[in-house]
Amino acid sequence: MGVMRMGFVHARVMNMEEAKDHYVNTLGFYPTHEEEGKLYLKGWDEWDHHSVILEEGGVGLVGHGYKVRREDDLAEIEKRAATFGATTERLPAGEHLEMGDVLRIHLPIGHYADFYATMTQVGNEVGYHNPDSFPWEARGIGAPHLDHALIVGDDMETTEKLFMDVLDFYPTERMLATMDEGAPLIATWLTAGNKSHDVAFLKGPDGKFHHMSFMLKDWAKVTDAADLIVHRDIPVDLAPTRHGITRGETCYFFDPSGNRNETFAGGYFAYPDRPVINWSMDQLGKGLDYYKREVTDSFLTVYT
Amino acid sequence: MGVMRMGFVHARVMNMEEAKDHYVNTLGFYPTHEEEGKLYLKGWDEWDHHSVILEEGGVGLVGHGYKVRREDDLAEIEKRAATFGATTERLPAGEHLEMGDVLRIHLPIGHYADFYATMTQVGNEVGYHNPDSFPWEARGIGAPHLDHALIVGDDMETTEKLFMDVLDFYPTERMLATMDEGAPLIATWLTAGNKSHDVAFLKGPDGKFHHMSFMLKDWAKVTDAADLIVHRDIPVDLAPTRHGITRGETCYFFDPSGNRNETFAGGYFAYPDRPVINWSMDQLGKGLDYYKREVTDSFLTVYT
Amino acid sequence: MGVMRMGFVHARVMNMEEAKDHYVNTLGFYPTHEEEGKLYLKGWDEWDHHSVILEEGGVGLVGHGYKVRREDDLAEIEKRAATFGATTERLPAGEHLEMGDVLRIHLPIGHYADFYATMTQVGNEVGYHNPDSFPWEARGIGAPHLDHALIVGDDMETTEKLFMDVLDFYPTERMLATMDEGAPLIATWLTAGNKSHDVAFLKGPDGKFHHMSFMLKDWAKVTDAADLIVHRDIPVDLAPTRHGITRGETCYFFDPSGNRNETFAGGYFAYPDRPVINWSMDQLGKGLDYYKREVTDSFLTVYT
Amino acid sequence: MGVMRMGFVHARVMNMEEAKDHYVNTLGFYPTHEEEGKLYLKGWDEWDHHSVILEEGGVGLVGHGYKVRREDDLAEIEKRAATFGATTERLPAGEHLEMGDVLRIHLPIGHYADFYATMTQVGNEVGYHNPDSFPWEARGIGAPHLDHALIVGDDMETTEKLFMDVLDFYPTERMLATMDEGAPLIATWLTAGNKSHDVAFLKGPDGKFHHMSFMLKDWAKVTDAADLIVHRDIPVDLAPTRHGITRGETCYFFDPSGNRNETFAGGYFAYPDRPVINWSMDQLGKGLDYYKREVTDSFLTVYT
Repeated sequence: MGVMRMGFVHARVMNMEEAKDHYVNTLGFYPTHEEEGKLYLKGWDEWDHHSVILEEGGVGLVGHGYKVRREDDLAEIEKRAATFGATTERLPAGEHLEMGDVLRIHLPIGHYADFYATMTQVGNEVGYHNPDSFPWEARGIGAPHLDHALIVGDDMETTEKLFMDVLDFYPTERMLATMDEGAPLIATWLTAGNKSHDVAFLKGPDGKFHHMSFMLKDWAKVTDAADLIVHRDIPVDLAPTRHGITRGETCYFFDPSGNRNETFAGGYFAYPDRPVINWSMDQLGKGLDYYKREVTDSFLTVYT
Repeated sequence: MGVMRMGFVHARVMNMEEAKDHYVNTLGFYPTHEEEGKLYLKGWDEWDHHSVILEEGGVGLVGHGYKVRREDDLAEIEKRAATFGATTERLPAGEHLEMGDVLRIHLPIGHYADFYATMTQVGNEVGYHNPDSFPWEARGIGAPHLDHALIVGDDMETTEKLFMDVLDFYPTERMLATMDEGAPLIATWLTAGNKSHDVAFLKGPDGKFHHMSFMLKDWAKVTDAADLIVHRDIPVDLAPTRHGITRGETCYFFDPSGNRNETFAGGYFAYPDRPVINWSMDQLGKGLDYYKREVTDSFLTVYT
Repeated sequence: MGVMRMGFVHARVMNMEEAKDHYVNTLGFYPTHEEEGKLYLKGWDEWDHHSVILEEGGVGLVGHGYKVRREDDLAEIEKRAATFGATTERLPAGEHLEMGDVLRIHLPIGHYADFYATMTQVGNEVGYHNPDSFPWEARGIGAPHLDHALIVGDDMETTEKLFMDVLDFYPTERMLATMDEGAPLIATWLTAGNKSHDVAFLKGPDGKFHHMSFMLKDWAKVTDAADLIVHRDIPVDLAPTRHGITRGETCYFFDPSGNRNETFAGGYFAYPDRPVINWSMDQLGKGLDYYKREVTDSFLTVYT
Repeated sequence: MGVMRMGFVHARVMNMEEAKDHYVNTLGFYPTHEEEGKLYLKGWDEWDHHSVILEEGGVGLVGHGYKVRREDDLAEIEKRAATFGATTERLPAGEHLEMGDVLRIHLPIGHYADFYATMTQVGNEVGYHNPDSFPWEARGIGAPHLDHALIVGDDMETTEKLFMDVLDFYPTERMLATMDEGAPLIATWLTAGNKSHDVAFLKGPDGKFHHMSFMLKDWAKVTDAADLIVHRDIPVDLAPTRHGITRGETCYFFDPSGNRNETFAGGYFAYPDRPVINWSMDQLGKGLDYYKREVTDSFLTVYT
């Protein structure tokens, strides 16, 4: 029950110089540490040391992490994971830069997830005394923080169950093959708190990555961001629209390595007693691109 | 640890017919039950039976409630309240319409708060299968849900401590008399989850009520709502602006009885490890009305 | 020199009952006159008797009209049209409902355009004394007024020249086959005043109609309108996006007969000394759908 | 009939260095020429050499200019001005930097207005071939262009008549002392084309200046601009709100010399046949600050 949020995404990029330009100058994230082949970044409204790790060499997701409230939560999660039958391992404090003890759970879809209670706090960019609402020195889109990730793999049912039983996440929305009883689960949106989702999983090849998402203030910021994306001639995958699923406003585009980014706003406040919303695959168009009600070719085929 | 959200506000109104017209036709809430002298309402995006109770006779706050996740949470809170030294009482299921067992805590500021795990679910207005994002039949402002309340009383320190120690809320922002160590607490914004606040308390006369707040989708909806408020010649207290505190977009206006309403959008996602933001009273103007940076006369004087 | 604006569009619809529901309840136009097989409508912010005429039987454009400032302008335009070599005719006052004398010019693309100085004024819906900014009783999208039309035909060069020489319109933007000197004109956006366009012409089969466009206040209203369009399950042709051409925000959808409607916001203020913007066909995607930078299949193929 | 728009405002500033920082880094205008004690600037979406001239020494309005369509228009205006009884003078080409012949009319309120057909074109910042919709290199607010000015003086009736009879402007809105027949004119909004106003006049001491206004894209940009204004601690006079008059969205603030600036969006398209909107002084609050419906103390008292 101690998971607070998705804390970081660790992704591979093909060319660090291009990637840095993208995440710093276009997305507006702040570099906090750079070393041979690795770059750590955070958004202006984040206080922990980093929420994005870029690693040179290839493309796709290396790993991702969730921050828990207390160190004790790690042991509790470890115990539950064992009961569930999931493989775990422990990484000692310091093995991850600026982080304390890490519990790693191997997910049944060729990905792992790291859990930690401690990361060096470096503070946000507006301070905590009579602060401004926005740091005007932010570059480009000026994205405040990492929001969530969409991760691809085959066994949706077990993955969802693991997040529910071991981690106390609950699903807010589900995509089912049909509305028939027992229809296969195609995708699930899961949250640990009150956001519409902290992570989502989509049925597909194990080990694949769909997108990492960055929260913007509102719809106007999503279209402002798209204006910049066009100006910099960045490939757009899903032009600004509304998701029927989560009701959030969205734009998908690709970083220079081909990893999909999302800028995201809106959504709703979720609670465990909120009835789960179910979608059927024949309405995926409405769920993905609410206005156009069509599925882009790439949504179910382009992963990294 | 079990409090999910502020679940309802129970307020007094002078004339039920006028109040009903305001909350139904202007705010866009849906009546779910009406009886002699009482009206129960909910927003279109709420699933519980009601989030606003209006009671004829006078003005101001009768009570307010928080929904907890599990029935067991009530006993845990009761125990902690006893340890804290707060007076509690139990109301059997059914004494509150459509609600289960209630634990009532008498706050040290002439208000009480009710806690409950069960309220009849009546469902939202868009359904849970391939839903629309907005119910176009909604009237007036079409406010989706109750967001929070600002409650007035004298002993801010004890009230904040009670919410932290007994209820596991944490403060996201605080207004202090000065930035000096040990300066008196003037106001505190507290959350049980990831919203910027579920409730706030402001130093003033015990038993008084500042406002109840309704969440809108975004800034454009706050100004649309204000267009309707002007059209219906409803008195505006704080014209649409941004709060420095919580960064949310806001408009204050009065219901026909003089109870202050707020329409609210934005804010941020809060977490327990987020450093608390401190404001000093000399910056109250910036905190309240970010653009104008002045305190309206009524903010610290007009309560119901 | 006397043309003020596009004053009306006269279109065919297959089923008047469905059409009326669409233009009144979805678009929010007000019926001002109904007779056997014909419906006259206006937007809430228009003062003339009508800006849309619907006629039962078929689909597409019957005609369209421009209002000139003074009766004398008709004679001047008639003279210039003769010099230009365009065929004209006169319709006596009253032949068009609630309109004065009409000068009809037959355009070289299988369409005609009517010019008139007089139409019965019926007033807007907010009045002229200390008015509100929006009529809250408006239905559906609540579109304030007709903005422009896009008309299809073969001879773009002569059509543009006619509007420039005879009517004192000037082009604000042009789509050319290539940027090479003398490249064929594919489309032209022409204005009589300071709007980014009052009419546009697109190369294609003579006598065809692309869309009629309704002005909304801003981007937020375009997406609100799209939320309603989805709710009513109306076919969307171009989901809300920005046009590179005119910079305006747009959504294309179809009325029940298949006539394309546009909701439109933004754009810029045009002046005769503003340099013309030229687009080349290889950038039509950016010009049409600025964020996606792709041409929808239907844009160059679906006309009525 | 040839006036196209307000072309420039020429204002005094106390300290050029501070003024330059304000107009360049905050407002986002581009310097096009600098000489001893004078700075010329333009917005990114303007093509003429300058639209703002700043002159060191004092505060307030030196002059302002309107661009006409053709050189011949100057003689026509001169003739009409003589008939009207207004004093005019001619300034030869080159006396005003980068401008052709100038006709100066002395207004009956201690101001003069300059008319010209020629100013060196330097082009906008996005170009004219397949252009972007916004220059992302723009600084601060990134205001696209000068929109209008509000000028103060005593004789409103004669000033309005001069603009109507000599210059073919027409009033879109008027503020009258009362709605009684023959009530004194307090303010008038006049346009030469389709904007809601190119200039407005307000009754007060002759020779005074109320504000110069810069057009932004929409309401979201007005509040973004206000976020920057707060960040730079610039004094705000009227926090972001809607004007009932013109329906435009607005924010008033002061440049470092105390000249009032406005950022403005929205409004409507005006036409000569649109009925004039009349306001009475008891509704000035609604006209000025639509949401708050109160007149700020400074509106009728603080001029430069």
